Amino acid sequence: MPRNQGYILATRPTREQPAGPHNFRLVESDLAAPAEGEVIVRNHYLSLDPYMRGRMNDAPSYASPQPLGEAMTGRTVGEVVATRNARFGLGDIVACTGGWQLFCKSDGRDTRKINLKIAPMQAYLGVLGMPGVTAWHGVHEIIAPKAGETFVVSAATGAVGAIAGQLAKIAGARVVGVAGGPEKCAFARGELGFDACVDHRSASFGEDLRDACPKGVDGLFENVGAEPFAQSMRRLSPFARVALCGLVASGYDGTPTSLPDMRVVLEKRAKIQGFIISDHMESWPKAQAELGEHVKSGRLKWRETIADGLEAAPAAFFSMLKGGNFGKQLVKLV
Amino acid sequence: MPRNQGYILATRPTREQPAGPHNFRLVESDLAAPAEGEVIVRNHYLSLDPYMRGRMNDAPSYASPQPLGEAMTGRTVGEVVATRNARFGLGDIVACTGGWQLFCKSDGRDTRKINLKIAPMQAYLGVLGMPGVTAWHGVHEIIAPKAGETFVVSAATGAVGAIAGQLAKIAGARVVGVAGGPEKCAFARGELGFDACVDHRSASFGEDLRDACPKGVDGLFENVGAEPFAQSMRRLSPFARVALCGLVASGYDGTPTSLPDMRVVLEKRAKIQGFIISDHMESWPKAQAELGEHVKSGRLKWRETIADGLEAAPAAFFSMLKGGNFGKQLVKLV
Repeated sequence: MPRNQGYILATRPTREQPAGPHNFRLVESDLAAPAEGEVIVRNHYLSLDPYMRGRMNDAPSYASPQPLGEAMTGRTVGEVVATRNARFGLGDIVACTGGWQLFCKSDGRDTRKINLKIAPMQAYLGVLGMPGVTAWHGVHEIIAPKAGETFVVSAATGAVGAIAGQLAKIAGARVVGVAGGPEKCAFARGELGFDACVDHRSASFGEDLRDACPKGVDGLFENVGAEPFAQSMRRLSPFARVALCGLVASGYDGTPTSLPDMRVVLEKRAKIQGFIISDHMESWPKAQAELGEHVKSGRLKWRETIADGLEAAPAAFFSMLKGGNFGKQLVKLV
Repeated sequence: MPRNQGYILATRPTREQPAGPHNFRLVESDLAAPAEGEVIVRNHYLSLDPYMRGRMNDAPSYASPQPLGEAMTGRTVGEVVATRNARFGLGDIVACTGGWQLFCKSDGRDTRKINLKIAPMQAYLGVLGMPGVTAWHGVHEIIAPKAGETFVVSAATGAVGAIAGQLAKIAGARVVGVAGGPEKCAFARGELGFDACVDHRSASFGEDLRDACPKGVDGLFENVGAEPFAQSMRRLSPFARVALCGLVASGYDGTPTSLPDMRVVLEKRAKIQGFIISDHMESWPKAQAELGEHVKSGRLKWRETIADGLEAAPAAFFSMLKGGNFGKQLVKLV
């Protein structure tokens, strides 16, 4: 067996020293042979996701804190390189919770073979994995956009946002993205087929959003928070639905996203629903079947930012939290 | 026919001159005999409700603005004193949208005979009217409290809050009221049967609320807004449901209720649903039937503050907006 390498959480962020790559430490370890029922997976791709930032804190949250001294958790796809589990053969390509490391051991739970005829393996960390199912659930189970309604999605070119907007478009909505910078906005309009995309870094963002949503906002799929979220909320239409999926731009380091005036929620009889996809296992089969059909037919597009090598993971992670990625953020480990 | 008297909206509030009794003017007019299909009702009780404050503004809201120069709108109960409508006889006791005046004319729409065997007529402006149905809808259609859950209701002794809390109690929840002052809190505990009631005027409100909700808040029926609302939000439990029914403490005069940190909505996967009962006509028959049963059996209690005479209406209205009432605010007109 080769030696394993991985990042552990060495220290937690503090008020004095905000989160950064210094909180992680690269460690080497021996790889034990699998016990009965176990497999060893060589991780090919690691998914970097905003929820990991929450787990770095030792505070009550929906995700339990990452234990200090253990490999950072994360979903991976890779190849079975040793097996004592009858469900898996050598060379099988699987998705598992392999963590920020080169190899992982699994007892087979939470590990499943993936179908490379539909899409390349790393798509199972994006459109066909947790981000895609998250988008599907927020769009169909919370917002339920109707034809002709206006649907706004933030982090519009991100792993979740790009799929959410395209699913809303398939449902017949007018889709307006919110993204950071002209390049992402052009991609949302040109490649993803959104009707409009507004740059939240522009000084005229508030007016641009208003102009892009002349009939108001019927559905809001929120991934980011901060001031652009407050602006979207101000434009809600009667009976608007807001799927609150993430607040990546705020909160982790003590800069909370506030909603300056709750009256809009009352006057517009709006619904705001916070959600975490791990609460909704019932959505996975239906979501994955539908997403798989859309991927096979070429109807869904997405983009990836791939960091090269395990040692690039910490910097890629913090860059993503600031919007430095363009599409699904992955780390290629092989 | 006697002469009619009523309050019209003479001027609108401005930033310089906030809303007050000076915005109304008492006017006299002749009462024309009813035309074919019409009835004349002598109003016995007028209901004063917070939504009327919103209608004083000429701004987009869920309620269309009150036209200047017309009698202030409002629900009333009274006696048919002239009729050319076959559905109504002289002396019938009816509920109608009779406004802030001694008499009103109705074409029979929005007017219905009420059953005095269940409760005295003014109950049809409270527990058996719009406030009661509002409470029922928020409790059963939005929050759906389960046995053992903690249910918090603000304006706990008010027309809506008192009924909401008792309905949640009937559903098996642990009910915690939020009210202004020790007298109201004692009434909520002693008469309404709430498990606890916290005084939002107390300096220790935040800690008192925490102590009253040791397991967090599963359901929040919010009528008031401002700082107590933000405090209740901070204590939400996972999968909490918030029925946003009113923000009477804020917003009308430019002091909005903010939600300082949206992260709680995400982390607790909470739902916030703004609602206005006039959107939910489907709830009325079921709500009124259930409320009527509870009233007949003596299970529901409520309290009224009755202002004496039409000319007391403006002062009573503004007192109510500041919490000066104790229970359902009525004006006795006869």
